[in-house]
Amino acid sequence: MKQPSSITKLIGKFSSLPGVGIKTAQRFAYAVIDMSEAEVKDFCDAMQAVKTNVHMCTECGNFTENEVCDICAHRDKSIICVVSYPKDVIALDKSGSYTGVYHVLHGTLNPLEGRSADDLNIKSLFRRLDGVKEVIMATNPDVEGEVTATYLAKLIKPFGIKVTRLAQGISMGSDIEYADEVTLERALDGRTEI
Amino acid sequence: MKQPSSITKLIGKFSSLPGVGIKTAQRFAYAVIDMSEAEVKDFCDAMQAVKTNVHMCTECGNFTENEVCDICAHRDKSIICVVSYPKDVIALDKSGSYTGVYHVLHGTLNPLEGRSADDLNIKSLFRRLDGVKEVIMATNPDVEGEVTATYLAKLIKPFGIKVTRLAQGISMGSDIEYADEVTLERALDGRTEI
Repeated sequence: MKQPSSITKLIGKFSSLPGVGIKTAQRFAYAVIDMSEAEVKDFCDAMQAVKTNVHMCTECGNFTENEVCDICAHRDKSIICVVSYPKDVIALDKSGSYTGVYHVLHGTLNPLEGRSADDLNIKSLFRRLDGVKEVIMATNPDVEGEVTATYLAKLIKPFGIKVTRLAQGISMGSDIEYADEVTLERALDGRTEI
Repeated sequence: MKQPSSITKLIGKFSSLPGVGIKTAQRFAYAVIDMSEAEVKDFCDAMQAVKTNVHMCTECGNFTENEVCDICAHRDKSIICVVSYPKDVIALDKSGSYTGVYHVLHGTLNPLEGRSADDLNIKSLFRRLDGVKEVIMATNPDVEGEVTATYLAKLIKPFGIKVTRLAQGISMGSDIEYADEVTLERALDGRTEI
């Protein structure tokens, strides 16, 4: 038995979203059938509004609806925190302890997959370095993130700017028993006096 | 820091889908930003097409784009398999061993949540009973499913029609050690000679 073709097509669309398999996409498609026509229209309007209104901040590359994002417009520009993706900005800013600005690379260096420095939002970072005291590298602590951080640090240091990296160690609430060796090694290396 | 309002709105829309939390909705919203405008339009068209083209089969209540669904149009109408939701039709039909038709209730009886027989697609089931030899109850083996099956069986039996229920027992590939007591009890009750 074949499903109606418009359902099959919508399932295909939903399964193109990250982490969505056929079963989940099917649930989503049935949820759409259960929505009212007004709700579906609203949903589509929201999708199209994001596409129309949201673009990259001309300074930091984060998503914004204005020319310059809220953070670049109002915060301390003498510290720049470099992240890979816009979602990292949200996560870091939730901690509330950081008052500087961000710079979003929109990816990490990965020569094997053909992502070189030209594919990332790097040029605009160097246009912002005037008057900057510190650049914090907040790329993920994996191979690509480390490579990207080291690459950028090497280019930024000659400007006489301090380059730092987020501290690595055991996470809050985690179990030392289950922590991996690299994490424990870095936690020991970075131990602080109490 | 606040996210652009159109992103927040789209995250809200995505989190209205079944099983989607804020973090997942956020990933989906960012995936939409990464799509091309044509892709977003296509996605919206697919959502709206489903809403416009798909409706319930006038006979069985399953989703179809025609007046009568493929299954009702071509298969043996002397056996009806009653299921709760359209997705159950897909699951059961995948097994390939069933040649009869289905009847989709679009829910189960649940007096506590105020779902009575009038809220389900039940009336049309009784209009189809002419010439039917067997009705298979394929509602889920949980309290609501059992109640619904028992309720319908009581109403259908007086027509002189055989009413059956899907066999219950241990699933293929499962572990007897971890099976619950009710399942094991039913597996023992329904044991077959080899």
